[in-house]
Amino acid sequence: MFPTDPISNLATLIRCPSVTPTEGGALATLEAMLSPLGFKVDRMVAQEAGTPDIENLYARLGTQGPHLMFAGHTDVVPVGDEAAWSHGPFSAEIAGGEMYGRGAVDMKGGIACFVAAVARHIETHGPPQGSVSFLITGDEEGPAINGTVKLLEWAAGKGERWDACLVGEPTNPDALGEMIKIGRRGSLSGRITVHGVQGHAAYPHLADNPVRGVVQLVQALMHPPFDKGTENFQSSNLEVTTVDVGNVAVNVIPAKASAAFNIRFNDSWTVESLKAEIVSRLDEAAKDDRLRPGRAPVSYEIVWNERPSHVFLTRNDALIESLSGAVESVTGRRPKLSTTGGTSDARFIKDYCPVVEFGLVGQTMHMVDERVAVADLETLTNIYESFIARWFGHAVA
Amino acid sequence: MFPTDPISNLATLIRCPSVTPTEGGALATLEAMLSPLGFKVDRMVAQEAGTPDIENLYARLGTQGPHLMFAGHTDVVPVGDEAAWSHGPFSAEIAGGEMYGRGAVDMKGGIACFVAAVARHIETHGPPQGSVSFLITGDEEGPAINGTVKLLEWAAGKGERWDACLVGEPTNPDALGEMIKIGRRGSLSGRITVHGVQGHAAYPHLADNPVRGVVQLVQALMHPPFDKGTENFQSSNLEVTTVDVGNVAVNVIPAKASAAFNIRFNDSWTVESLKAEIVSRLDEAAKDDRLRPGRAPVSYEIVWNERPSHVFLTRNDALIESLSGAVESVTGRRPKLSTTGGTSDARFIKDYCPVVEFGLVGQTMHMVDERVAVADLETLTNIYESFIARWFGHAVA
Repeated sequence: MFPTDPISNLATLIRCPSVTPTEGGALATLEAMLSPLGFKVDRMVAQEAGTPDIENLYARLGTQGPHLMFAGHTDVVPVGDEAAWSHGPFSAEIAGGEMYGRGAVDMKGGIACFVAAVARHIETHGPPQGSVSFLITGDEEGPAINGTVKLLEWAAGKGERWDACLVGEPTNPDALGEMIKIGRRGSLSGRITVHGVQGHAAYPHLADNPVRGVVQLVQALMHPPFDKGTENFQSSNLEVTTVDVGNVAVNVIPAKASAAFNIRFNDSWTVESLKAEIVSRLDEAAKDDRLRPGRAPVSYEIVWNERPSHVFLTRNDALIESLSGAVESVTGRRPKLSTTGGTSDARFIKDYCPVVEFGLVGQTMHMVDERVAVADLETLTNIYESFIARWFGHAVA
Repeated sequence: MFPTDPISNLATLIRCPSVTPTEGGALATLEAMLSPLGFKVDRMVAQEAGTPDIENLYARLGTQGPHLMFAGHTDVVPVGDEAAWSHGPFSAEIAGGEMYGRGAVDMKGGIACFVAAVARHIETHGPPQGSVSFLITGDEEGPAINGTVKLLEWAAGKGERWDACLVGEPTNPDALGEMIKIGRRGSLSGRITVHGVQGHAAYPHLADNPVRGVVQLVQALMHPPFDKGTENFQSSNLEVTTVDVGNVAVNVIPAKASAAFNIRFNDSWTVESLKAEIVSRLDEAAKDDRLRPGRAPVSYEIVWNERPSHVFLTRNDALIESLSGAVESVTGRRPKLSTTGGTSDARFIKDYCPVVEFGLVGQTMHMVDERVAVADLETLTNIYESFIARWFGHAVA
């Protein structure tokens, strides 16, 4: 029997306790759904020293172009306080029209619906005129080292090429159909260490308090704003996520202070131009002697996070219009084309093909009692089915 | 034999390993020196729940006024890296004209010299026309809970009254005779906690980053300066000694941030007026919305250290002139009357009688290879002996 029912698909997936890095039976379940549809399924295991081995899945139906990829993950975040759940986090119980379970919206729900949509398409029209593939990782909620990045490299290394991708992450703030994501801000993190000279609080002239320096520096990062936003993006925003000295002696001036920051940035910037701006702000602030009269510039060093996320914006009208049209035809809503929020694996996929994102309502993701309206599963399946038809219609035409 | 040789006195004291809170034989040694001189010696043990018992010593020669107190401590700070010492830290070895040992200058040296000075005075002139006492604690370098404060209360409770006090702490920056202390700045410490709202770094509008608040607040404490100094005191100075958040997640806005500060303040301020100024600065800075546009004032709380040190200035001409004259007559230097540096037990004694401080050169105190020039021991003994004669001459006249 074809997996055309998203509710049944999701219940089966939720019952697999696939908390990162555990496969938990979720990929095996997905393979069992896809194989009867004609998909060729690969279960690729990614390994890296110092990290757990991760199972991933790549499945393709068809051998010709155009080629549409659906991307997502079956791993889920931990359940948190299990006793606080109204229904078991791996039980998939339905109550009040909602199915409960970890991963219900993030994002086994999206996978369950896309599987059902493909199954219905095949049942009605036969296989699409081209190829459909699933690129599903088991390491999106974890360190993401053995996940989408390696799976893409592995598949591309085998000659796989894609024309477009839909990521099935939850994208709607309140109601299905409100929002699709057509890009994401970038994310860059760094850590500053200020070196001072330790000493007694009663003899500050013999010391150099690094707290003065770190306050100057982080203030220059927090103000003024980096930009005012662009046509498609909100303004870039930097948060200083921690400042630490760890000095417990009340009469001692400490030797060093550190601070870490994270900036979510728009298409006014590249990682490189942003680093240059940040260093420029820090160097300028280091010279300011208001808090350190008569002192040499603040001595600091900066270490950048090794894996910044680059900003991207998808400008593929056929892809965006196929999705927007599908959403509108099913829900009556014209979805907002958004670039807000955090990062997603779309930031890796965008190097291979145009990528958009659309999924369920994200309100309960990562929370106790994560759940999805059963009605939404049917609606999303209809949207995905319409999207598949529209995209292949566009692409083939 | 009278303990008239400060070098011998000091060697005996250094060989007692009296690291706080251990008596280490130091007070017993002192008792053995003072008893033959006619002192009535009390070894008062102070106790308080949660702290080690501490031995202290109070010794008085004479029963009449005027009454001169010499105050100090036989406890010493830990030796640190013992392997790094050129000579054993409790060996009292002499090399290159210097005696090595923990406490050599801080402040077994001062005690050794004052004992020698009193012994010489008695040998030459007989007991002073009045009383001399030693008020020596074993808890100055530690928490100082079972030390000078309790010893003063205990002695005063027995009816002891003093007309003046000399504290034998090291007071000279480079050479013997440069500086006597006639007062001390106050010291006040506090800890600020800023309460924010935790959240994801990509959704700052749903959070309230307490780092922004704490930076605003500590900046208001660091600038502008509290005053420009007074006739007898340098300017007050505040150091922020730590800022801590402890957030290790680079994409999370933390829930709270804290900072601690210590201010050394002059006689422009009382503890109360200073607290009011600090709270006023914090309240004003909390309202500044430059780093937190459109936000409510920073939510913070402040906890004050329970034991602030009050500022004091000694204005007793007979005492100051006796000491300055003695220093000048022996060294040829007119000492600077200073109120600089940290706090000392003089801040407790000033509630009982006028107090001044003069001792050795402090350069090596608390360091590896703490040591004293042997010549300085003889010089300081001469100064102390001259001071005793001058003070009793003044006081009796």
